[in-house]
Amino acid sequence: MSLTSAIKGVIPISPTPFFADGRVDMDSMARLTDHFGASGVDGITILGQLGEAPKLEFQEARAIVELVAKRFTQPIVVGVSAPGFAAMRALAREAMELGASGVMIGPPNTLRTDDQIVGYYRQAAEAIGPDVPFVLQDYPLTFSVVMTPNVIKRIVGENENCVVLKHEDWPGLDKITALRGFEKDGAMRHIAILVGNGGLFLDFEMERGADGANTGYAFPEMLVDVVKLSAAGKRDAAHDLFDAHLPYLRYEQQQGPLGLAVRKWVYMRRGLIACDAQRKPGASLNAAAKGEVEYLLSRIARTDSRAVLKAA
Amino acid sequence: MSLTSAIKGVIPISPTPFFADGRVDMDSMARLTDHFGASGVDGITILGQLGEAPKLEFQEARAIVELVAKRFTQPIVVGVSAPGFAAMRALAREAMELGASGVMIGPPNTLRTDDQIVGYYRQAAEAIGPDVPFVLQDYPLTFSVVMTPNVIKRIVGENENCVVLKHEDWPGLDKITALRGFEKDGAMRHIAILVGNGGLFLDFEMERGADGANTGYAFPEMLVDVVKLSAAGKRDAAHDLFDAHLPYLRYEQQQGPLGLAVRKWVYMRRGLIACDAQRKPGASLNAAAKGEVEYLLSRIARTDSRAVLKAA
Amino acid sequence: MSLTSAIKGVIPISPTPFFADGRVDMDSMARLTDHFGASGVDGITILGQLGEAPKLEFQEARAIVELVAKRFTQPIVVGVSAPGFAAMRALAREAMELGASGVMIGPPNTLRTDDQIVGYYRQAAEAIGPDVPFVLQDYPLTFSVVMTPNVIKRIVGENENCVVLKHEDWPGLDKITALRGFEKDGAMRHIAILVGNGGLFLDFEMERGADGANTGYAFPEMLVDVVKLSAAGKRDAAHDLFDAHLPYLRYEQQQGPLGLAVRKWVYMRRGLIACDAQRKPGASLNAAAKGEVEYLLSRIARTDSRAVLKAA
Amino acid sequence: MSLTSAIKGVIPISPTPFFADGRVDMDSMARLTDHFGASGVDGITILGQLGEAPKLEFQEARAIVELVAKRFTQPIVVGVSAPGFAAMRALAREAMELGASGVMIGPPNTLRTDDQIVGYYRQAAEAIGPDVPFVLQDYPLTFSVVMTPNVIKRIVGENENCVVLKHEDWPGLDKITALRGFEKDGAMRHIAILVGNGGLFLDFEMERGADGANTGYAFPEMLVDVVKLSAAGKRDAAHDLFDAHLPYLRYEQQQGPLGLAVRKWVYMRRGLIACDAQRKPGASLNAAAKGEVEYLLSRIARTDSRAVLKAA
Repeated sequence: MSLTSAIKGVIPISPTPFFADGRVDMDSMARLTDHFGASGVDGITILGQLGEAPKLEFQEARAIVELVAKRFTQPIVVGVSAPGFAAMRALAREAMELGASGVMIGPPNTLRTDDQIVGYYRQAAEAIGPDVPFVLQDYPLTFSVVMTPNVIKRIVGENENCVVLKHEDWPGLDKITALRGFEKDGAMRHIAILVGNGGLFLDFEMERGADGANTGYAFPEMLVDVVKLSAAGKRDAAHDLFDAHLPYLRYEQQQGPLGLAVRKWVYMRRGLIACDAQRKPGASLNAAAKGEVEYLLSRIARTDSRAVLKAA
Repeated sequence: MSLTSAIKGVIPISPTPFFADGRVDMDSMARLTDHFGASGVDGITILGQLGEAPKLEFQEARAIVELVAKRFTQPIVVGVSAPGFAAMRALAREAMELGASGVMIGPPNTLRTDDQIVGYYRQAAEAIGPDVPFVLQDYPLTFSVVMTPNVIKRIVGENENCVVLKHEDWPGLDKITALRGFEKDGAMRHIAILVGNGGLFLDFEMERGADGANTGYAFPEMLVDVVKLSAAGKRDAAHDLFDAHLPYLRYEQQQGPLGLAVRKWVYMRRGLIACDAQRKPGASLNAAAKGEVEYLLSRIARTDSRAVLKAA
Repeated sequence: MSLTSAIKGVIPISPTPFFADGRVDMDSMARLTDHFGASGVDGITILGQLGEAPKLEFQEARAIVELVAKRFTQPIVVGVSAPGFAAMRALAREAMELGASGVMIGPPNTLRTDDQIVGYYRQAAEAIGPDVPFVLQDYPLTFSVVMTPNVIKRIVGENENCVVLKHEDWPGLDKITALRGFEKDGAMRHIAILVGNGGLFLDFEMERGADGANTGYAFPEMLVDVVKLSAAGKRDAAHDLFDAHLPYLRYEQQQGPLGLAVRKWVYMRRGLIACDAQRKPGASLNAAAKGEVEYLLSRIARTDSRAVLKAA
Repeated sequence: MSLTSAIKGVIPISPTPFFADGRVDMDSMARLTDHFGASGVDGITILGQLGEAPKLEFQEARAIVELVAKRFTQPIVVGVSAPGFAAMRALAREAMELGASGVMIGPPNTLRTDDQIVGYYRQAAEAIGPDVPFVLQDYPLTFSVVMTPNVIKRIVGENENCVVLKHEDWPGLDKITALRGFEKDGAMRHIAILVGNGGLFLDFEMERGADGANTGYAFPEMLVDVVKLSAAGKRDAAHDLFDAHLPYLRYEQQQGPLGLAVRKWVYMRRGLIACDAQRKPGASLNAAAKGEVEYLLSRIARTDSRAVLKAA
C-alpha cells in the first residue's frame, strides 16, 4: 500500500512514548497506535519532529516502525529528515521494507534561496529513490525555510514521488488557494494537501482546498469530525466543533517542547501512554499548567464528552 | 503624567491610518484616538511595529504624536525603536515634549547573548535619558531576540526608567510566573507586565500575574472586559467572553502584514478609519479573507453585539 | 554627474569621524574627503554601514552629504538603506538635490525568498524614483539575505536605475563569472561590479571580471594600484602588492565594530581624522590590538612606504 | 591515552575521502592518516564538519574510527555532534572503545540564550559520560551560536570532561585574552585552546595565548612550523612563514563546500587522496578556480618547497 496524492482525511502525527528513564515505551506505542486505528483516521505519521525522532538511535527508530507496521492497517508515513542523505536513505529504505507507505522530509534550516530549496529536494528524492513516495514538509516557523507556492510547484514538477504537502506555513490560507489555482490552470499536477501547525487554521484550510490534517492534536477524533463535516459542506457544524476545542488547541500549540509536554500529558491522562516524559532535552508541565489544561478540557467536555478526563 | 510601574488595564496599540495613496490620514487617526478614549482603555501606544512606524518620516511621526497628545487624556506611549540611538533619542525627547508619558523600545534583531541584550538596553536607557520611562518589548517571534527572565531582571535592575514589560514571548506563561516570583523574593522591583501577541493567551496571562494588555486587537472593548472580569476573579465569565472572540482573534493574529490587514479592514468596517491601506510594503485582504472575517464576526455577534458590522 | 554602469576603478567607503563625545567631526570629514580626492579614486561612498549611517540623525546625514558634495569632484554615492521606504526616499531625494550621483541600497535582513528580494528592490526603486541611479548591495554575511545570480539578473532587468552591484558575497568569485556570463549571453545588460568585503579577494575578483573596488580599506591607494595593475594585465605585480597588504587587510576585515575600530585607528594614525571614536554602540582598540596593527603596518612598510606611520 | 587540557601543538581536522560514486575511500583515508602522522602533528580530529560527518551512516563512521585508531599513535578526537543525545552517546562510546582519546561537540544552531548553551553542554556532557573528555567547539559563523567568555567559563566550570576549546570565533583574539585572564585570576581552570577558522588568525592567536591549531589547512606542516616558531618566541620567522601561505590560506577559507573543495583538490594534487569528490550535497572546483589555486601555490613554492605540486 503506497502513499499517493489521492490520500484524504486525517493522518495524526504520533508522539513517541518514553519511560521516565528515557527508554522507549513500546507497550504505550502499541496502545497509542491501536487508539489511532480505532479513531477513524486515514493513516499515521511516526518519527516526525513531534515524535522526537532526532533523539532516537537508528535501532530504536527501526523497532518503532516495525511495531507500528505490524498493527496498523492504513498508510504509515515515516519521518526521515536527517542531516545527511546517507542516513535519510538508510532509514527510508528500511522503513519501506518494514511496511511503510511513504516518508516525510523537512528541509535543513540552512536553506535560503529558491534554488537551494529545489536543489535539496531533488537530491533528497534521488537519495530515497523514485519508488518511495514522500511528504514535503513546509514549516517555516520551525525550519526557517520559506517556500513560495512557485518553489513547491517546482519541487512537485521535478519529483514524481512528491505526493503530499504537509502545509504548516503561517499565515498560509492563500498558499493553499495559490496551489489549488496552479492545479486548475494545469500548471501543477494534483498533490494532497494535509495541514499541520496543530490544526490552528484547520476550519478555513479545509474551505480553501485542503484534503485533511496531518498534525498532532491530542484529540484526533475532533480533527476527523471537522474534516468530515467540512467535506460534507456542513460549515456551521464544523466551526462549532472546532471552536469548542480551539481554546485548548491554542494552548497545545505553544511552540517547542512545551506544546509537546501538553500533548503527552493529555495522552497520559487519556490512558493512552504510561508516562508523559520526553527524552532529553525536553520539558514537562508544572502544576499551574496542568490546572490550566484541566480547566480547558472541562470546558470542552461541556459539549464534547471525549474531553472528559478520568480522575487523576 | 508619567508612565509608571503602577499602570494597569488595557493600552491598545494603535494602527496608523493611511489613504490609498500612502499619505497619513490624520482625520481617521483622530477618530480612532477618540474611539480608544471612549472604550474604557487605560492608555494608548502609538508608532509601534503595528503602527507601521518604520515606514514613517520623522515629521509624520511627530505630527501623529502631536495630534494624539491633544485629544487623549490618559498615558501615551510612543514607540521609538530605531536602528541607532541618535534617532531613538531624538524621537523620544520630541515625543515627551509633545506630551507623551513614556516610550517603547524593542531590541534590534542582531542581539544574541545575554550581555548583548543587557548592554543594548543600558545604552538605550542612557540615550533617551533617565527621566523618560520606557516599556521593554520582549517579542522573540518578531525580533529573534530571546530574553530569559534573568535578563529581564538585569535590565530592570540596571535601568530605573524601565517600568513596563510588554510581554509577548510564546510560550510565555511561565515567564510571567518567574518574573512575579522574582518580585516576591525581593530579587526584582515591581514592574507592570502588559501582554501582547494579539492577546492570544490573555485569559491565562492575567491569571499568572499580568496587569493587563498592550496589544492591537480590533475590539479593545473585549480586552477591557476580560481584564476587568479576570481582575475581579470572575474566571468563567472572563473565559466565556474571551473564547467567543478567540476564533477571530486567532485569525487576526496571523503574522506580518496580513494580520494587520485583517485589523485595518475591521477598523474600517467599524467606521473608525476611512481606508484599510497599509503604506508599502504591505498587504490587503482578498475576497476570500474578507468573507472569512465576516463569517467569524457574525459568529461573535451571536453573543457580543459589538461585533455586528454595518452593511458594507 | 550621474552614476552609470560605466563606472570603473575604486570608490572607497568613507567612515564618519566622530569626536569622543559622539558629535560628528566635520573638519575631519573634510580632511578625509580631500585625502580620498587626492588618492586617485574614482568616486566616494558615504553613509554606508561602515559610515555608521544608522546612528545618524537625518540632519547630520544631510550635513555630511552637503559637505562632501562641496569639495569632492567625482561621483558621490550615498547609502540610503532604511527600515522604511519613506525615510529612504526622503534621504535619496535630498542627497541628489545636494549633488549626489547615486545611492546605495542594502536589503532588510528579513527577506528570504527570491520573490521577496526582487519585490523589495522593485518597491525601493520606485520609492527613490527612476531618475536616481542605485547601487545594489549584496552582502549576505551582514544582511543574511542570499541573492543568487538569477535574482540579481531579475533586479537588473526590472529596474533600469540599478547600475552597480556592490559585490560582497563570500565565497563570490563564481558569482562574478556567472553575472558576466549573463552579459555575454545577452541575458542581462551590463552593470558595473565593484567589490567589497574589505577587498579580501580583490586580486582574483578583478581577474574574474570586476570593474573595481567599493570598500573601506584604510589604504585606498593600494586598492587603486591593484585595480590599475590588474586592469593593465600585470598579474604578478598586482598580486605582489596585494599580498604585501594582505596580513593587515585580513586583520582589518574582522567583522562588526572591531574591524571599523582598526580602520578608524589607522586613519587617525595617518593624520586623516582627529579621533577614532565610534558613536555608540561601538568598539575601540585595546593595547594588544594596537600593537598588532603597528606590527603589521611595519611589515607592509618594508615594501610600501605609504604604510609608515608617524610616531604616535 | 586520554585527551587532557595539557594538549599542545597541531591537531589537524581530517577530511573524509570519497570515490566519485560516493563510497568512502578507505585506502586514501589510511594514506592521509599516515601523512598526518609523519607531519609532526600532535593528534588528529576525524568526523568533524569538514570531514562531512553528517553525511555518513553510523557504520561508515565506525569503520573510519577503527581504521585511524589502528594506525595513528597520537590522540584521536572524534566529532560526535548530532541532532540528539542518543546518537551522540552511541558514537562517543563506540569511538572511545575503538581507541579514541576524546570527542568534539558543536552546538545545535537553535541555541540562543546563555542558559540554553550552558544547559545544552551540561546534558551533552552527561550523555557521553564523565569519563569521555570533550572539545568544546565555538564556531559562531557556522553554528549561529554566540558564546561569551563567561558562558565558556560556566561550561568549563560545570563539566570536568571539557578539556579543550576549539576556538573559531571571528573576531576572536580578545576572547583568548579574556579566557587566559580568567585562568590567571583563578576564575577558571586551565583548558587547552586550539584555534580553527582555517588558521586565518593563527599568527596572533598564538601570541594571545593559544596552545596550537585544530583546523583543516591543506599543509598542516606549515601550521606545525608556525606554532613551533611562535612558541619559541621567533615572532618574525613565524609571521614570515605564515604570511607566505596567507594568500592561499585565505582562498581555502571560503565558507561552505567550496572551501572544502579547494582543500580536497590540493590533497589530491599532493597525492594524499585519490579523488577530490565530496559526498552529496557538495561542490567541486571549476577550471578557473583550479588555475587560481595553482597560481597561489606556485607563489608559496618560491619560499616553501612543500607547496610544489607534481604535474597534474
